Amino acid sequence: MRELDLLSHIYRSNAGLPAGVTIPPGDDMGAVTLAGANMLVTVDQVADGVHVDLANTPIEKVGRKAITRNLSDVAAMAAKPVGAVAAACLPKGFGEERAQVLFDAMRSTAEYFGCPLIGGDISAWDQRLILTVTVFAEPAGIDPVLRSGAQVGDVVYVTGALGGSLVTLQDPPGYIHHLDFTPRLDLARTLAGNPATRPHGMIDLSDGLASDLTRLCEQSGACARIDASRLPISAAAGLASIQSGHPAWRHAIGDGEDYELCFAAHGEIPGEVDGVEITPIGEIVQRGSGDQSQGKVTMRLPDGSLLDVAGLGWEHSG
Amino acid sequence: MRELDLLSHIYRSNAGLPAGVTIPPGDDMGAVTLAGANMLVTVDQVADGVHVDLANTPIEKVGRKAITRNLSDVAAMAAKPVGAVAAACLPKGFGEERAQVLFDAMRSTAEYFGCPLIGGDISAWDQRLILTVTVFAEPAGIDPVLRSGAQVGDVVYVTGALGGSLVTLQDPPGYIHHLDFTPRLDLARTLAGNPATRPHGMIDLSDGLASDLTRLCEQSGACARIDASRLPISAAAGLASIQSGHPAWRHAIGDGEDYELCFAAHGEIPGEVDGVEITPIGEIVQRGSGDQSQGKVTMRLPDGSLLDVAGLGWEHSG
Repeated sequence: MRELDLLSHIYRSNAGLPAGVTIPPGDDMGAVTLAGANMLVTVDQVADGVHVDLANTPIEKVGRKAITRNLSDVAAMAAKPVGAVAAACLPKGFGEERAQVLFDAMRSTAEYFGCPLIGGDISAWDQRLILTVTVFAEPAGIDPVLRSGAQVGDVVYVTGALGGSLVTLQDPPGYIHHLDFTPRLDLARTLAGNPATRPHGMIDLSDGLASDLTRLCEQSGACARIDASRLPISAAAGLASIQSGHPAWRHAIGDGEDYELCFAAHGEIPGEVDGVEITPIGEIVQRGSGDQSQGKVTMRLPDGSLLDVAGLGWEHSG
Repeated sequence: MRELDLLSHIYRSNAGLPAGVTIPPGDDMGAVTLAGANMLVTVDQVADGVHVDLANTPIEKVGRKAITRNLSDVAAMAAKPVGAVAAACLPKGFGEERAQVLFDAMRSTAEYFGCPLIGGDISAWDQRLILTVTVFAEPAGIDPVLRSGAQVGDVVYVTGALGGSLVTLQDPPGYIHHLDFTPRLDLARTLAGNPATRPHGMIDLSDGLASDLTRLCEQSGACARIDASRLPISAAAGLASIQSGHPAWRHAIGDGEDYELCFAAHGEIPGEVDGVEITPIGEIVQRGSGDQSQGKVTMRLPDGSLLDVAGLGWEHSG
């Protein structure tokens, strides 16, 4: 079952939504009017065996990831986190001490990013661990940046470096990107709060650049052309490439869980914000007149050939 | 592992919460200030094998319950629902059509109660189905009713009838309370919006009257005395009693998932609101001077003896 098929079914049903829903399902966060204010909300799951391998992961990092996955969605809207609630279904025999370490990690991570944990639900069952975290956020003076705003002629940028998020690094020692990444909250607000640098459309990279840039394009009614030689390839993608035998650019565009931002902008984007590199990788282009595939992303390979990136992405739930 | 032990660990950590948290963890909903407004939030899980038996339950009812469980928490605060997000982890091979029916049921139930579904997350795994729903609500002119406000001398009331929530009825045909109940949203706001009837303290009955009234008492720093002969016993509790051989009052006080309201009030409480009966079952009393057990609930049995109800409650996550 493909996640996208199911999500599109839900999105098709948006027509009946009341006027208070200011951002319907389909963006990094939904939004609803609450006492006259715009509240953004996102929910993500961390399931043992799908998003994390509990047997080989320190429990603190599992708790951290359950919070930071959501905060990456908050960053993609350039919003400011306000609070979170966490639900856990623990395997029987998980151990109370271990559960406390897990919740302490969620709580301290959430507080570190200004997003206090204000409630939760805990159950136990004979199945694997699953954590579900919901984060709410507010615009706090900066209009949310949607996926749908990319315009033809915009440059496509990504933050940080891509690929190999499952690989364990020696520098920093033991760093594993999908567990240890920093959500790009401040960077997003720095860019979006300044009219000269405000992105037109933005998404966070959870399923891989191929999938997520395609989504940005689909929702903006445009296409994109990117260049493999311009992709910022992480050290981890280099290591992954040695192990897999695939070229490193294949990891940078296809691997999931970068939790970096991808955005389309027309302004004067700096090469770095707060020590995080920002790299132009291509541009937003018109859909071809005879082209049925709205949202198509094409990549120029090092040998000069053009590749349709559809199908290169990674699905958590595949 | 007992849910309460874990939750108390989380609650002990409330000291560091920022000023924007207006209702900390430990009530039916938490609350946080968002753009100057008070936003309430709750999260609940519906796990196959714990809260629902997927093999023997129409999938529409599973979706319905995932929403209404949360709305019962909203009712317990006398708040007004604003919106919801839903996360699902589906067993592989669940089937796309079945997933669509599930999501349609969640969406239509949520909309029926004025609580549109504005986002979600879907994964698949080789474990059982779990749904996690987060609901947001606003006071909308009525201050939230907390668990902690019960006062000595208050009368203790419950709505509806209690017990046997897992039993299938013949009238209405096929009605199973834990799947088909109606959250007491309107009733709660009718009572709480009128100074003459506003409850001092309120909780919804999810783990059974024995457990939940004990919680209300603990958080109010008081005790309660109730009378078994005054408990409103449901027809389902009568059927359960025949099957179990236990007296029906044992089901009314011990069975979980009533999703009725229990509240303490001093006003002129009507015997019925919107067709739902409201029954006085006892009173809030002082803690005995030599009594270590804050929050103790004592029940007078039909034979005149007194019973400490501690341990009669039901834990989802046992």
